[in-house]
Amino acid sequence: MTEPGLTRDAFLDGKVIAWQPREGYRAATDPVFLAASVPARAGQSVLELGCGVGVASLCLAARVPGLDCTGLEVQAEYAALARNNAAENGAALTVVEADLEALPTDLRARRFDHVIANPPYYAAQGPSARDAGRDKALREDTPLARWIDTALRRTRDGGHITMIHLTERLPELLAGFAGRASCIVLPLAARAQRPARRIIVQARKGARAPFVLLAPLVIHQGDVHLGDGDFFTDSARAVLRDCAAMDLRDMALG
Amino acid sequence: MTEPGLTRDAFLDGKVIAWQPREGYRAATDPVFLAASVPARAGQSVLELGCGVGVASLCLAARVPGLDCTGLEVQAEYAALARNNAAENGAALTVVEADLEALPTDLRARRFDHVIANPPYYAAQGPSARDAGRDKALREDTPLARWIDTALRRTRDGGHITMIHLTERLPELLAGFAGRASCIVLPLAARAQRPARRIIVQARKGARAPFVLLAPLVIHQGDVHLGDGDFFTDSARAVLRDCAAMDLRDMALG
Repeated sequence: MTEPGLTRDAFLDGKVIAWQPREGYRAATDPVFLAASVPARAGQSVLELGCGVGVASLCLAARVPGLDCTGLEVQAEYAALARNNAAENGAALTVVEADLEALPTDLRARRFDHVIANPPYYAAQGPSARDAGRDKALREDTPLARWIDTALRRTRDGGHITMIHLTERLPELLAGFAGRASCIVLPLAARAQRPARRIIVQARKGARAPFVLLAPLVIHQGDVHLGDGDFFTDSARAVLRDCAAMDLRDMALG
Repeated sequence: MTEPGLTRDAFLDGKVIAWQPREGYRAATDPVFLAASVPARAGQSVLELGCGVGVASLCLAARVPGLDCTGLEVQAEYAALARNNAAENGAALTVVEADLEALPTDLRARRFDHVIANPPYYAAQGPSARDAGRDKALREDTPLARWIDTALRRTRDGGHITMIHLTERLPELLAGFAGRASCIVLPLAARAQRPARRIIVQARKGARAPFVLLAPLVIHQGDVHLGDGDFFTDSARAVLRDCAAMDLRDMALG
């Protein structure tokens, strides 16, 4: 398959291949970190809200064999690419084209062991991107609180919701889960001693454990940006290249 | 002055001396870190809610000359010790014995440039300590949300509220400030790569800046507890011994 508007990109050192729009929202490292932090075991079910071209689910399926993955995507072009990517990677990922506020009946009847999401990062009133698809993928028509509500409703009691988002949205994320799940937060910092720009929030539905803030995972070595030759830290390289898991509960034991 | 039930302790390498109950709640490093993170300038006013024997306000006054400090303390024994400690350190700290839910009229008429607090760490339903004073200082009869409400009401627009608390209370702290102040969080981690057990939350009343999560300040060198000979990191030693400030807004620039 070749498409002038698409690129064919490798993730996890080539263990996952994904076609994605050249100009649209482009998966980079965020969905790979998201996938690494999901504590899924073989045989469990996973629902990804807003799966885009499927990179997070495909990376998770590449690490954990025997998962039953469902990806929800509202944009037809991304949903079609996700289906194609699932086939090309031989992954058990079923893609459902629907809005998370209007789930099909069969999905509304299900509870999953894991719900994961990389929601749009910017509020709907922000400036518009050049590309409509990128715009939709980056800007939230659906408020973050609705992503959390839907995730909680689709997760079984004791199951996990794992999301990656901008750190500046952490207060909203914690408010959304308050009283309904216990949360562990892993900050992702580009460099040591810098504020973390991304966070992974992992919520366990119905649990009452104290809130935990983990030590940041630092992505790049060194203090300054060195250009394209930037080195990853050992921890980041293990996740991004070697498909390593990040066990947040284990990290919480400190 | 000698008292069998009291100890006379040095903070900031002896720049602050404080008498405190031998058996009660005992100030250690938390109020020193709290004081270091308050962005007060000479001539400004500071209100400390629940000042105990006054260590945080005294450390702040030792670093920033010309502050007008008021300490609120509900327990008579601690309030009396705070007054004595203020006199012994020659600090401009006025101690008011009152409950933060029943402030005297003159305090209710004031707005401060800074409000600071090291609230009780444990919810009221927790196990009781041997000592009644320690119990009161550690356990919250007043819900954390009320501390935040009172702090916000007593702060001028654009002024700062700085609190230190257990990390597990961060969701409640952020919920309390939501929509009313912008927050920066500094995690305090005993060691590198360990989850931070304490956080400093700094809120700017009425501001709308994005939430910021700073890189943790690591207190001890090394990976394991080495006993009483434990070494502080350079950053922690600068705060605890040399009275250095921690400028959270500067740290946020990364």
